[in-house]
Amino acid sequence: MEEVHSIAGPLQAALGGDCPQSVVDRLGAVSVGTLIQNLQRLGLHQQFMVGVEPRNAHKHFAGRAMTLRCLPAREDVSKVVGRGVESLHRRAYETIGAGQALVIDARGEMGGAVGGDILASGLAARGGVALVTDGAIRDLPAMQAVNLPIFSRGDHPRTFGEVHVAMDLNVPVQCGGVLVMPGDILVGDEEGVVVIPPAIAEKVAESGEEQERLDSFILTKVAAGIPLRDAFPPNEQIRAEYEAWRKQHV
Amino acid sequence: MEEVHSIAGPLQAALGGDCPQSVVDRLGAVSVGTLIQNLQRLGLHQQFMVGVEPRNAHKHFAGRAMTLRCLPAREDVSKVVGRGVESLHRRAYETIGAGQALVIDARGEMGGAVGGDILASGLAARGGVALVTDGAIRDLPAMQAVNLPIFSRGDHPRTFGEVHVAMDLNVPVQCGGVLVMPGDILVGDEEGVVVIPPAIAEKVAESGEEQERLDSFILTKVAAGIPLRDAFPPNEQIRAEYEAWRKQHV
Amino acid sequence: MEEVHSIAGPLQAALGGDCPQSVVDRLGAVSVGTLIQNLQRLGLHQQFMVGVEPRNAHKHFAGRAMTLRCLPAREDVSKVVGRGVESLHRRAYETIGAGQALVIDARGEMGGAVGGDILASGLAARGGVALVTDGAIRDLPAMQAVNLPIFSRGDHPRTFGEVHVAMDLNVPVQCGGVLVMPGDILVGDEEGVVVIPPAIAEKVAESGEEQERLDSFILTKVAAGIPLRDAFPPNEQIRAEYEAWRKQHV
Amino acid sequence: MEEVHSIAGPLQAALGGDCPQSVVDRLGAVSVGTLIQNLQRLGLHQQFMVGVEPRNAHKHFAGRAMTLRCLPAREDVSKVVGRGVESLHRRAYETIGAGQALVIDARGEMGGAVGGDILASGLAARGGVALVTDGAIRDLPAMQAVNLPIFSRGDHPRTFGEVHVAMDLNVPVQCGGVLVMPGDILVGDEEGVVVIPPAIAEKVAESGEEQERLDSFILTKVAAGIPLRDAFPPNEQIRAEYEAWRKQHV
Amino acid sequence: MEEVHSIAGPLQAALGGDCPQSVVDRLGAVSVGTLIQNLQRLGLHQQFMVGVEPRNAHKHFAGRAMTLRCLPAREDVSKVVGRGVESLHRRAYETIGAGQALVIDARGEMGGAVGGDILASGLAARGGVALVTDGAIRDLPAMQAVNLPIFSRGDHPRTFGEVHVAMDLNVPVQCGGVLVMPGDILVGDEEGVVVIPPAIAEKVAESGEEQERLDSFILTKVAAGIPLRDAFPPNEQIRAEYEAWRKQHV
Amino acid sequence: MEEVHSIAGPLQAALGGDCPQSVVDRLGAVSVGTLIQNLQRLGLHQQFMVGVEPRNAHKHFAGRAMTLRCLPAREDVSKVVGRGVESLHRRAYETIGAGQALVIDARGEMGGAVGGDILASGLAARGGVALVTDGAIRDLPAMQAVNLPIFSRGDHPRTFGEVHVAMDLNVPVQCGGVLVMPGDILVGDEEGVVVIPPAIAEKVAESGEEQERLDSFILTKVAAGIPLRDAFPPNEQIRAEYEAWRKQHV
Repeated sequence: MEEVHSIAGPLQAALGGDCPQSVVDRLGAVSVGTLIQNLQRLGLHQQFMVGVEPRNAHKHFAGRAMTLRCLPAREDVSKVVGRGVESLHRRAYETIGAGQALVIDARGEMGGAVGGDILASGLAARGGVALVTDGAIRDLPAMQAVNLPIFSRGDHPRTFGEVHVAMDLNVPVQCGGVLVMPGDILVGDEEGVVVIPPAIAEKVAESGEEQERLDSFILTKVAAGIPLRDAFPPNEQIRAEYEAWRKQHV
Repeated sequence: MEEVHSIAGPLQAALGGDCPQSVVDRLGAVSVGTLIQNLQRLGLHQQFMVGVEPRNAHKHFAGRAMTLRCLPAREDVSKVVGRGVESLHRRAYETIGAGQALVIDARGEMGGAVGGDILASGLAARGGVALVTDGAIRDLPAMQAVNLPIFSRGDHPRTFGEVHVAMDLNVPVQCGGVLVMPGDILVGDEEGVVVIPPAIAEKVAESGEEQERLDSFILTKVAAGIPLRDAFPPNEQIRAEYEAWRKQHV
Repeated sequence: MEEVHSIAGPLQAALGGDCPQSVVDRLGAVSVGTLIQNLQRLGLHQQFMVGVEPRNAHKHFAGRAMTLRCLPAREDVSKVVGRGVESLHRRAYETIGAGQALVIDARGEMGGAVGGDILASGLAARGGVALVTDGAIRDLPAMQAVNLPIFSRGDHPRTFGEVHVAMDLNVPVQCGGVLVMPGDILVGDEEGVVVIPPAIAEKVAESGEEQERLDSFILTKVAAGIPLRDAFPPNEQIRAEYEAWRKQHV
Repeated sequence: MEEVHSIAGPLQAALGGDCPQSVVDRLGAVSVGTLIQNLQRLGLHQQFMVGVEPRNAHKHFAGRAMTLRCLPAREDVSKVVGRGVESLHRRAYETIGAGQALVIDARGEMGGAVGGDILASGLAARGGVALVTDGAIRDLPAMQAVNLPIFSRGDHPRTFGEVHVAMDLNVPVQCGGVLVMPGDILVGDEEGVVVIPPAIAEKVAESGEEQERLDSFILTKVAAGIPLRDAFPPNEQIRAEYEAWRKQHV
Repeated sequence: MEEVHSIAGPLQAALGGDCPQSVVDRLGAVSVGTLIQNLQRLGLHQQFMVGVEPRNAHKHFAGRAMTLRCLPAREDVSKVVGRGVESLHRRAYETIGAGQALVIDARGEMGGAVGGDILASGLAARGGVALVTDGAIRDLPAMQAVNLPIFSRGDHPRTFGEVHVAMDLNVPVQCGGVLVMPGDILVGDEEGVVVIPPAIAEKVAESGEEQERLDSFILTKVAAGIPLRDAFPPNEQIRAEYEAWRKQHV
Repeated sequence: MEEVHSIAGPLQAALGGDCPQSVVDRLGAVSVGTLIQNLQRLGLHQQFMVGVEPRNAHKHFAGRAMTLRCLPAREDVSKVVGRGVESLHRRAYETIGAGQALVIDARGEMGGAVGGDILASGLAARGGVALVTDGAIRDLPAMQAVNLPIFSRGDHPRTFGEVHVAMDLNVPVQCGGVLVMPGDILVGDEEGVVVIPPAIAEKVAESGEEQERLDSFILTKVAAGIPLRDAFPPNEQIRAEYEAWRKQHV
């Protein structure tokens, strides 16, 4: 067999930085839109998963990525996976940790699902915070009753093994066109899912929180009829009003 | 004119099997996800219509297919259809039978609609159980008030004759990438529409019902914290519990 | 620099016709589906924006188009726009007139947004009646709270300047595949957005109103079990009933 | 089984008109571009197959359509077709007449082929003039050596039965988004394939021939430096020159 | 009518910089691939037209952009353009200057053409250096004989007025997803078309020429078996060899 | 960091089977179309790369897969790869073995290239037999002169690092929708690329060779006018003729 090389480990080391759960929680209180803006300002422009949308009533989460990489099914491979060769598809759902989001790289494939209501319920029971995939989920009606945010590109009732084989757990993957390292922080809301490297998480949380405060203040002004030209960005006077308000409230 | 050949008749005969309405009703009580899984087990992997989704609040139905085949409009043809040559588009809506679902093969064309609120209301008034198409419907706001499940790939207000000509009624068609024979059983729910050949309908109903019972039982276990590894599929103990429960309830 | 030529002015003059606000209001009371049918009858077959859908709870509007043309961002251009060269993106939101709908030609580009909740609130505060684009909007969760109909092809949190540069205000544009002249009348409902040339607006309003009356009447008949063949289009007897009813109610 | 209705026969009768082989030959001497223009002038705007392109060195043909309608493969159906139920896929290739083009409606499906080099050679051996499909062909290298124009949307080596079942022979079909009646005249060149109803074939041949003559004449003028403004369309003087030249050469 | 605003003029002024024809010629001697790399190094990452490919044997050109902006056809507009309101489509072809490339923004629309062999010949006769569009061209067979590079996204025989109306000449446009200012320099080869702002044209020409020299030198080394690791980028020794060679040859 | 799991190794072991170079060579003498048919007969239906086509004059190869997995570029990652963290993109080209085909999983991404003429020449110089990717290549004109088969989905001049980061070498990947294990045998011709598991390679070679012999024989018959019905598949008499011919020639 050919010699395998991977930069996953060295890359993790080079990116460095972990962050406490408190930062994850703070990120979860900021909107995806605001987080994206603050990531842009730090020079990160490719952090939003395209087409990955909430599929039930639970639309908000923040957690660390547990990643699962899937490849196209192939009949000779399907014959042995789960029969002698372990199914990582099962292992992912069975071993997820509390506070983790399961991110399944499904290559954008929409012709079969990465899981249904029972697997998703198992995820929730273990303390998983979300199921995120750029493929499909199944059991859409029953998924409505699962107590877990489910983000996908769509739904298809065909089962996992018909189109996928799970090859690796906790390696870097793509999902919705974004590179996701295991342990990256994911935040989801109605708009979709953003990926935040832990090394800059606290910085993003801080600037994000500040922006949301300011934006809320501006919004009240604009809704009250203050022209955009004065309020957004705020002119000196409105900025001063904001600073005063801020001192009292934060 | 060229000699016409069709295998529609011989094929119907070879596929054989009809099934009583009671089986259709039982299929309608099983989810599309479960039905697809049971069709897969019988070797049928191409039975789910891709992209065909519910457009109003009525999302559940089961019925037999009345099929309508549409082809692209052509100006010389449009001039005579409905003026000397019968409009099968009208005939379909006007003659549907009770318990039937009208399946319109629209070639995935989204630039014009196969019907609006008045036609759909006529369908409902005759006892039709659903309008299913891989094209568009129109009058989306008014369709919300129609008492009939409406499944389509989307909506477009352009009228039928601008893009379609209806060529045949009750011939085999495709819809959403699935072959549909007239008389096939269609079941729809939030996930979409599945096509079930009558010859295996009873078998699918039986195994589907059994699976839904078992899955519900498993789900309560998983939600209660029993690990997926033990509960899904159930280990010996949980299987025994289920069998006991099953004896009491079915 | 090359000599610029444009037919925008002469074309406006040749198309002619303005219409009072009362006609805009009447158009807003007719459904998009009905308006499209009446435009078809007048020989206009390309008036519906493809893929442009409502994104919050405000789904109905009628107004005159203020148009904004965007082109792809280019780094040398982005450097000067807003710094020496005016940002028309800002001007559009800051100067919209009461009764106007801001139509942003985004070339169908979905990788960045044309505006978020603050800009949209500013639009509403000035009396704008809608934000319409064939691109994306951002701040989807916050957009739910904005008191303005928002129509777009989707949402993406990336900010405007990452993908767009606004080049012209109030020139003819395309949006969703439809030519929109500044001042054209736009009507939106759950189905999407239709573009109506002012020169024929009154005619369309009249025939549209009449059709809606008749269709409502027919619908009660069809729902009551009168066959489509008799009721749609109405036979002599039902037509007579309608005319009697009409005399009493209009 | 449901009652079948088709307007194929009445429609053929209503469209009427056949044309001698000499007209087919004349049409084959006109370019597809010119034919489309002349069809437009007669009010037919939907006659060009989108995406259907020549796949070997034989790019020119004219012939009458023998049509084959394919539907998506389904496992229960595939089991009986060719085993008890006739394969129309085979019948089409085996019975095509001299001067006919085999038009296979493949629903735009590119995941499997409608034929390879042996079937295509059989077509040529019987005097067939072209293989035209909006699906894929296979054996692309060997197809280069087949003495027959082959037009398709692409190539894929998967065999017919993996994705298709042939349902009807010589019924109206769509191909590349165009309605094709059996017996319609098809003309192909480097640009693609145009469909011409026999009832207007002679008219189209005549005006097409005249246009090609005039265009050739104009082209020599333009290439010689006569401004487009004078030559295209020709002003009085150039028109007179042409008429003189025409008298001598036609 | 609404007040029109445009930043086209101020933007041209702010971007500044023109360049002599000699620079255009030098750019034309560098490959598109090399030009893109050198534009990237200057911070310009969006300069390659996606999907715009050569359609005849003439694949190399360099010239300045004359731009034409097209919008979707609309029946009320089509009635007056060319009849009272000037056709800018015609004006573009009739007035192009020597050394100019006609760039037609066709919105990526492939359902109709921006020109055929006669118009393209007229372009060539006036000294135009290329026809470039992100739409379709027509008369594909005859286009082979036209003595002008033709770049498009494809071909379709439908005529211009069926899908387009030309609105402006020499305004900024997009083509293939790239912003093109009138007067921008376009270079085309087998790979496609790149857009170069005049203000940096000389810089790009210089660095591009140098890179092509070095790359050619490296290529001979690599082909001769020198490992990529040593030759690309060149190590000290090979760099020295190159410098020596360069001194002798440039 | 999370615990990594992979089934790549166990899967390789379970699939088993290697094959001598002589078998690779024999496979290279069979057409892709024939190989696909023989893989289908062995139950493997997903072995053809969709959209991956030859880009220069070298269209035939057979070799073993060296695989490179690319993920989307991310600014924080791009900063360290090649600067502290090794570039596997470079390593792949620099270490490929004789007889190997470099297969680059580019996720179907067409907005940047996986390599140009210098890298490809380096590949050829080391005895690599092909460059295969479902992304783009660059330097299209210069690639024509490279002495190596190049298969891709298209070309784009943007450089690798703008859109990709190479994460792993010699892990299982997807390419063109097919699962490729390191060491799998790839065969390419005009039609595209097929993936053959080594464990069944000899079987496929044998049946493929036999089929090509028989098909060639049949083709001469069909071209000579023997009806398809008799010759394809061959009836008893033609089968006997073939067996006689075969005895003499193989």
